[in-house]
Amino acid sequence: MLLSQLCKKLDIEFLQNDKQIVGLNTLQDATDDQVSFFQNKKYKDELEKTVAAAVLISKEYIDLVPSHTIALVCEEPYIKLAYASKYFAPKVIETDGNTAVVGKNSVVQNNAFLGKNTTIGSNTIIMANSTIGDNVKIGNSCIIYPNVTVYRDCIIGDNTIIHSGAVIGSDGFGFATDKAGNHIKIYQNGNVIIGDDVEIGANTTIDRAAFTSTIIEDKVHIDNLVQIGHNCVIKKGSVIAAQAGLAGSCNLEQYVVMGAQSGSVGHITIAPFTTISARGGVTKTITTPKKQWAGFPLMEHRTWLRLQGKIQKLLS
Amino acid sequence: MLLSQLCKKLDIEFLQNDKQIVGLNTLQDATDDQVSFFQNKKYKDELEKTVAAAVLISKEYIDLVPSHTIALVCEEPYIKLAYASKYFAPKVIETDGNTAVVGKNSVVQNNAFLGKNTTIGSNTIIMANSTIGDNVKIGNSCIIYPNVTVYRDCIIGDNTIIHSGAVIGSDGFGFATDKAGNHIKIYQNGNVIIGDDVEIGANTTIDRAAFTSTIIEDKVHIDNLVQIGHNCVIKKGSVIAAQAGLAGSCNLEQYVVMGAQSGSVGHITIAPFTTISARGGVTKTITTPKKQWAGFPLMEHRTWLRLQGKIQKLLS
Amino acid sequence: MLLSQLCKKLDIEFLQNDKQIVGLNTLQDATDDQVSFFQNKKYKDELEKTVAAAVLISKEYIDLVPSHTIALVCEEPYIKLAYASKYFAPKVIETDGNTAVVGKNSVVQNNAFLGKNTTIGSNTIIMANSTIGDNVKIGNSCIIYPNVTVYRDCIIGDNTIIHSGAVIGSDGFGFATDKAGNHIKIYQNGNVIIGDDVEIGANTTIDRAAFTSTIIEDKVHIDNLVQIGHNCVIKKGSVIAAQAGLAGSCNLEQYVVMGAQSGSVGHITIAPFTTISARGGVTKTITTPKKQWAGFPLMEHRTWLRLQGKIQKLLS
Repeated sequence: MLLSQLCKKLDIEFLQNDKQIVGLNTLQDATDDQVSFFQNKKYKDELEKTVAAAVLISKEYIDLVPSHTIALVCEEPYIKLAYASKYFAPKVIETDGNTAVVGKNSVVQNNAFLGKNTTIGSNTIIMANSTIGDNVKIGNSCIIYPNVTVYRDCIIGDNTIIHSGAVIGSDGFGFATDKAGNHIKIYQNGNVIIGDDVEIGANTTIDRAAFTSTIIEDKVHIDNLVQIGHNCVIKKGSVIAAQAGLAGSCNLEQYVVMGAQSGSVGHITIAPFTTISARGGVTKTITTPKKQWAGFPLMEHRTWLRLQGKIQKLLS
Repeated sequence: MLLSQLCKKLDIEFLQNDKQIVGLNTLQDATDDQVSFFQNKKYKDELEKTVAAAVLISKEYIDLVPSHTIALVCEEPYIKLAYASKYFAPKVIETDGNTAVVGKNSVVQNNAFLGKNTTIGSNTIIMANSTIGDNVKIGNSCIIYPNVTVYRDCIIGDNTIIHSGAVIGSDGFGFATDKAGNHIKIYQNGNVIIGDDVEIGANTTIDRAAFTSTIIEDKVHIDNLVQIGHNCVIKKGSVIAAQAGLAGSCNLEQYVVMGAQSGSVGHITIAPFTTISARGGVTKTITTPKKQWAGFPLMEHRTWLRLQGKIQKLLS
Repeated sequence: MLLSQLCKKLDIEFLQNDKQIVGLNTLQDATDDQVSFFQNKKYKDELEKTVAAAVLISKEYIDLVPSHTIALVCEEPYIKLAYASKYFAPKVIETDGNTAVVGKNSVVQNNAFLGKNTTIGSNTIIMANSTIGDNVKIGNSCIIYPNVTVYRDCIIGDNTIIHSGAVIGSDGFGFATDKAGNHIKIYQNGNVIIGDDVEIGANTTIDRAAFTSTIIEDKVHIDNLVQIGHNCVIKKGSVIAAQAGLAGSCNLEQYVVMGAQSGSVGHITIAPFTTISARGGVTKTITTPKKQWAGFPLMEHRTWLRLQGKIQKLLS
C-alpha cells in the first residue's frame, strides 16, 4: 500500500514523497518499508534510532523523528495504529494456494483439517479434529493430539508435542481505547514460532504477536491451561506449570521455572534459572539469575517464608 | 406440562385447579405459566411480587405466597426444583427441524457442524471443526475460529469474533445438595446472548443461564481462558483479561475492567468504569463508579498499595 | 521385553537371571513383572516391601533391595526411569484393531471420531467433532458434548456428562531433569478412570497417570477450566469449582469441596467433607474431616477471617 493511501484511510494529512509500505511494526523492529508509532516518551531512544519509513506521532514530538523517517502527525497515534492494523491483516482464510504437503510416514487422521500452503514434515501425526491453518509449517516427528488449533502462519519445529485443545496463534489481547471508551482492535498480524522438543499442555493458549513473533524456544515444557500473551519470548529449557499466565511481551530467559497458577505482568524479563513459586506474581524485571521468588507482589522466596512467620506471630 | 403432572413426578400433593406450565424461573422473572421456588428468606420481597403460576415452598412460608400463585408445599424446595428442571430440559440433540440456513457470502469450512434450525447471517466465517448447535442464531460479519463450540439456543450478534476452543453455552455449575450429600443437577435451560462487536478469547468458557440468559453486551472484549458463570450480565464495553473468573449472576456494569487472574464471587454488581487489578478478588457489590480495586479480599487499590508498604515495614 | 534388553538400552550392566517385564510402576504398585525405581529415602519402607521384578537404584542403597528384586545399579535412577518409560509407551494411534462398537440407541454425530477397539454403551450421545481415542470404554446414558477429547485407554462409567473442550487423559506433566538441565519426558503410560453420574465442565483437563490411573469416582462434579494432575484420586461426591487446580497425586477423600481458583500442591490427602474456600491454596495434608480452610498458605477459615481483621487494624 502507498503511504498516501494509508494516510487517506486514517484521515491524516500527507504531503511528503510517497512510498510503498508493507506493514506495521514497533520502532525497534520496523524496517524501512514499515510504519511505526510513538505514544510513550519512555521509547524516545527507540524513536531516535528507528529506520521505519514513517511514524504515527503527535505534533509535540515531531522534532524527535529522524530525518529519514516521515512523521505522520495525528492526535491519538495509538488509535490510528489500531485502525491502520486492519489494512495489513492477512485474510482469515486463504481462498487460493496449494493443497497442504504431508511428508513421508506422516499420518493425518480423519477429520483433521489442513489449510492452504501448509507443510507437514515426515513421521508427524496430526490427530482427528485438529485444525492446522493456512501457511503453517510443522516439522518432523511431531505429535499434534486431537482438537488442537494452529492458526495461520505459525511455525513448529521437530519432535514437538501439542496436547488436545491447545490453541497456537490466537489473536493477542490488543486494542486501543479512545476517549469515548471504545476499544479499537489492533489486528494481530504476527505469528507464533515454536522450536524443537517442545511440549505444550492441553487447553493451553499461546497468542500470536501483534507484529513480529511470539517465540517458544527448544526444549520448553508448558503444562495445561497456561496463557502465553502476545510477543512473549520463552527461551530454551524453561518450564511453565499449569494455569500460569504471562501477559504480553514477557521475556523468560533460559531454564526459568514458573510454578502452577503463577503469573507475570507484561514487558518484563526474568533472568536465567529463576524459579517462581506456585502462585507467585511477577511484577517487575528480575535481573539476578538462579534465585527463587514467591508471593504477590513478588519477593524472594526466603523473604516470603519470613513473612509467613510474621503473619503467624500476628495471629498468636 | 400440567402442574398436576409435575407434582406427581415430584411427589408433591396437588389439590388446586390445574394449569398448563411451560418452565421454571426465579420469582422475579417467572411468568404466569412458569413455576418458581422459595428457599431463602432474603427473597421475601420477590415472593410477594411474583406472578409465577406456582411456587415450590416449605410449609412455614405459605402465608407469604400471593393469592394468584399456587403454593406447592414440600420439604426441600430447592431439591424439588432440581428434580423438576430435568422435565423442562430441551433435547440434547434435535432430531427434527430444518437444515441450517447460511447467509450470502458466508463461508462454512469443511468439518464445521451446524445444527438444526440454526441460522448464520451474511459475510460470516465458520471455520473448520467448529460446532454450532441446534437453534442457534449467528449474525453478520462474524468470525468463528476453528474448534469453537456454541451450544443450542444461543444467540450471537454482528461483527463478533470468537477464538478457537471457546465454549459458549455450556451448563452452569448448578446443583442442589440433599441431606445425604447427593448433588442433584439443576438442568440449565437458559441460553447465552452475545451482542455486536464482541471478541471472545481462546478456550474461554461462558455458561448458559439456569433459566433465562447469560448476557454479553456489545463491544465487550474477553481474553483467553476466562470463566463466565451462568446468569452473568456483562455490560457494554467491559474488558476481561486472561484467566479471570466470574461466579454465577455477576452483573458488570458498562466499561468495567477485570485484570488478569482476577475473580468475583457470585450475585454481585460492579459499578461502571470500575477497574479490578490483576489478581483482585471481588467479594461484594461495588456501588461507586470509576474506582480501582485490588487484593483479596478486595480493597481500594491505594489501600492495597499502603498495605504493601506496611508489609515491607513488617519485614524490615 | 527382557530385563537384559531394557538394561542394554539404558546402558546399565546386567548379569543376573533374565526375566520378561511388561512395564514400569511405583515401588508400592509394581507387580513381579514390572520395574520400579528408588530415588528418595522417604520411600525406604516401600522399597523394603516391593515385589517389583527389578528396581533402578544408586549403588549406595543396594542393601535395601529385597532378595526377590533385582537391583539395577545406575547413577541417576529417575533419569533412567524417564528414558525407560518411552519403551513401554503404547502407540499414539493403533493401526490394527476393531472398529468401535456403539450400543443400542446411542448417537454418534457427524464429525465425531471413534478410535479402534473402543466401545460405547447404550443411550449415549457423542456429539460432533469430539474425538474418542483407541481402546476407550464409555458407559450407558452418557453425554459427550462437542469438541471433547478422550485419549486412548480411558474408561468412563454411566450417566456421565462431559462438556465441550474438556480433555480426558492428556499426558501428566512429568519429566526428569538431568544435571545439564535437560528435561527428559516420562511417558505417561497410565489412564484416567471416571465413574458414574460424574459431570465434567467445559475446557477442564484431567491428565492420565504416569503408571496406573487417575481416578474420578462416582457423583463427582467438576466445573470449567479445572486442572487435575496425573495420578489424582477424587473420591465420591467431591465438588471442584471453576479454575481450581490440583497438582499430581492429590487424594481428595469423599465429599471434599474445592472453591473457585483454589489449588493444591501434589502428593497430599484432603480429609472427607473438607471445604477449601475460593482461592485457598492447600500446602499439606488435611487429616481432620469437615473443616473449612482458606488462604495461601492454607489456614483454617476462621483464622483467615481473624487475619483479615488484623490487616484492617494494621491499615487503620
